[in-house]
Amino acid sequence: MTSSTPAEADPTTRASAVSGPAASAETIPAASARSGLVKPFAAMGIVATVGQMQRAGRDTIAMCLGEPTQGAPSPVLARAAEVMSDGTGLGYSPIFGIPELREAIASHYRDWYGLDIAPDRIAVTTGSSGAFQTTFLTCFDVGDRVALARPGYGAYKNILAALGCEVVELDCGADEGFQPTVDLLAAAHAKAPLKGLMLASPANPTGTMIGPEALGRIVDWCRANGVQVISDEIYHGISYIGTRGECALAHDDSAVVISSFSKYWGMTGWRLGWAILPEALVAPAQNVTGNLSLCAPVPAQYAAVAAFTDESYAECEAAVASFAGAREHVLGAAADLGFGEMAPPDGAFYMYARVDDILDRAGIATAGQWCEQVLEATGVALAPGDDFDSVDGPRSVRLSLAVGADRTAEAIDRILDFMG
Amino acid sequence: MTSSTPAEADPTTRASAVSGPAASAETIPAASARSGLVKPFAAMGIVATVGQMQRAGRDTIAMCLGEPTQGAPSPVLARAAEVMSDGTGLGYSPIFGIPELREAIASHYRDWYGLDIAPDRIAVTTGSSGAFQTTFLTCFDVGDRVALARPGYGAYKNILAALGCEVVELDCGADEGFQPTVDLLAAAHAKAPLKGLMLASPANPTGTMIGPEALGRIVDWCRANGVQVISDEIYHGISYIGTRGECALAHDDSAVVISSFSKYWGMTGWRLGWAILPEALVAPAQNVTGNLSLCAPVPAQYAAVAAFTDESYAECEAAVASFAGAREHVLGAAADLGFGEMAPPDGAFYMYARVDDILDRAGIATAGQWCEQVLEATGVALAPGDDFDSVDGPRSVRLSLAVGADRTAEAIDRILDFMG
Repeated sequence: MTSSTPAEADPTTRASAVSGPAASAETIPAASARSGLVKPFAAMGIVATVGQMQRAGRDTIAMCLGEPTQGAPSPVLARAAEVMSDGTGLGYSPIFGIPELREAIASHYRDWYGLDIAPDRIAVTTGSSGAFQTTFLTCFDVGDRVALARPGYGAYKNILAALGCEVVELDCGADEGFQPTVDLLAAAHAKAPLKGLMLASPANPTGTMIGPEALGRIVDWCRANGVQVISDEIYHGISYIGTRGECALAHDDSAVVISSFSKYWGMTGWRLGWAILPEALVAPAQNVTGNLSLCAPVPAQYAAVAAFTDESYAECEAAVASFAGAREHVLGAAADLGFGEMAPPDGAFYMYARVDDILDRAGIATAGQWCEQVLEATGVALAPGDDFDSVDGPRSVRLSLAVGADRTAEAIDRILDFMG
Repeated sequence: MTSSTPAEADPTTRASAVSGPAASAETIPAASARSGLVKPFAAMGIVATVGQMQRAGRDTIAMCLGEPTQGAPSPVLARAAEVMSDGTGLGYSPIFGIPELREAIASHYRDWYGLDIAPDRIAVTTGSSGAFQTTFLTCFDVGDRVALARPGYGAYKNILAALGCEVVELDCGADEGFQPTVDLLAAAHAKAPLKGLMLASPANPTGTMIGPEALGRIVDWCRANGVQVISDEIYHGISYIGTRGECALAHDDSAVVISSFSKYWGMTGWRLGWAILPEALVAPAQNVTGNLSLCAPVPAQYAAVAAFTDESYAECEAAVASFAGAREHVLGAAADLGFGEMAPPDGAFYMYARVDDILDRAGIATAGQWCEQVLEATGVALAPGDDFDSVDGPRSVRLSLAVGADRTAEAIDRILDFMG
């Protein structure tokens, strides 16, 4: 996995790629300035090392990625195989997806949240990634200020920056449960008006959730101040506090809700997600999506209809139970591991912890170095916090529990052994 | 299929969606200005009507979309079904795709073009759509001038506009084979420097190709003038003049080449394509792609490795032979149909023709109206030229031959009957 080094942006390096006569204008190829705003994921270096170790026969435990290892529910796999036996229906779908899937998603919102969502407000997208992109382009212009929590999922910042938006980081500490508050929003808005707010509950990397009352206060404030709420709910259903997560649409129909088949349903590589749009944004978002991506992967769309069967839900709940076991293992070992400040996650499959004491004792400066040492010695891959927090992240780590309870227990044993 | 009507952009309409206290700032939800730059495809209205007619039991022939009806090659379908029997390998792939597929694509370039492409320059993307997006963001900044041919594929313009680039249309008529020339480029560059050139050969909607000499002249001029060439080669292999298409990389390693499994391999709904990048753009493009889309659909990636087998190529060549038959049918009937200026397509599966005489005789103003009449009377769907040319398009039509020879012959008979 290569990363963008300063050398890549050095015009003299670029010039060496140009053959032929001396260019009279700029030399090509040359990367755009905006591509330089997109930071490579630090975790990708770890992922690459894991791959090398696996190819070399090492037994690794990859707790560095938000990727459930159980894979797609078996009804989804069975339906996908059926679809392949008659491949003629796999042309372009309507821009926002096949009607059966949009209706199945609407039905899911009735079952889980008691919400009635018109299927024509549901856009099936190429992962939640596709939903973010369409939503950001549809809601925001170049220069618009969009707020989000720090720590938070790094791709929000990178996509927004690449699309010309100004990212406004809200410093959300443990006191705020790592989530935005009206006070933080009002302070940022007072400096210069915000155009949007990106919410994530449960959040990556902390796993904290926003409760119904707090969510209600936030969306009320946003509506009153003309701030578009975009609510990332891709970890809904993966919860340890007896609620599936609070849907922003229960509080405000003008919010955009984004979700995915990647996490609860374990379908990361299938690249399938959705957005629920306010009526007024459906047509512009459809134009944007139709041009930028045409439609979401169609075999996956047909297969995903089977994600909403009883058998499928049962398999997903079994996976959640395994994540819950993993969570207990890590919480129980947190003191022995030397983890500092951390929020016991309400949901998602992450634990995010300060590692100041560990670094001090080891005499190293960054979590990235510690993660490398742990990986080399134990085969357990953790993610340094750099991708989630440019300020405090280098002294934090994120553990993904998505490998399940047994592998997590094994990983903790190995790390404790390593730490002596 | 809804489209962006003026009412959608009307602030009073938007305000009605806002409940609660009067907004103190802008009202939400509100579409961004840039989403308004993205034009809905006129063909989508036709596609929606076709869908309604099919559900009502009408026998339709959809010559309005660039979608081969034969579907994926059978080795690809078989491989996909195999992948589904063990769904555990379907997590995220590396950002630029699984190594097997990148190597298979490199091997394809050796076989077809005699070109040696390092697999690490090949980015497997979510359709050519994903490749365009990554390439445009990686190469161009807001305000950069990017030239392209008019007539041309509408999504180029729309994506570039949404990403803040200035689209410079080159007026490429029949005299130029509907393709850019150095003279047209130099004239546009003299007004204000160009940063990029989008090439498409074979082109959509005209099917014309750029020969080796003309391509060499264009890329030489671009390199000398600091203009980044992006060459859309998704129709390569679908050709009627004894060449598969000329790869821009045979002339200049600094070009970006974009291709896809959608057309020659008939895999539209699978959303799988690729870009070949100059070395200097690999790292920034990887950062952009990793954040904007993570990776291309993984089941499709594994299946597509089988696209490069002998059996698969043989099926694709049979489809091309059927398109060739369709082309002969339309060329033979062009005079009877009353088609005006048109270029006999060198490749792709389109015919693009002026319909001035037809409109005059029918006493109607636009090709869109004529296409609606033809569809209603005959069940044959053609695309009005509006999506490809905002100037002359409303008096042109595009026929897609991707329905094959037999259905094309049937369609022509029906249209001639209708025209009396």
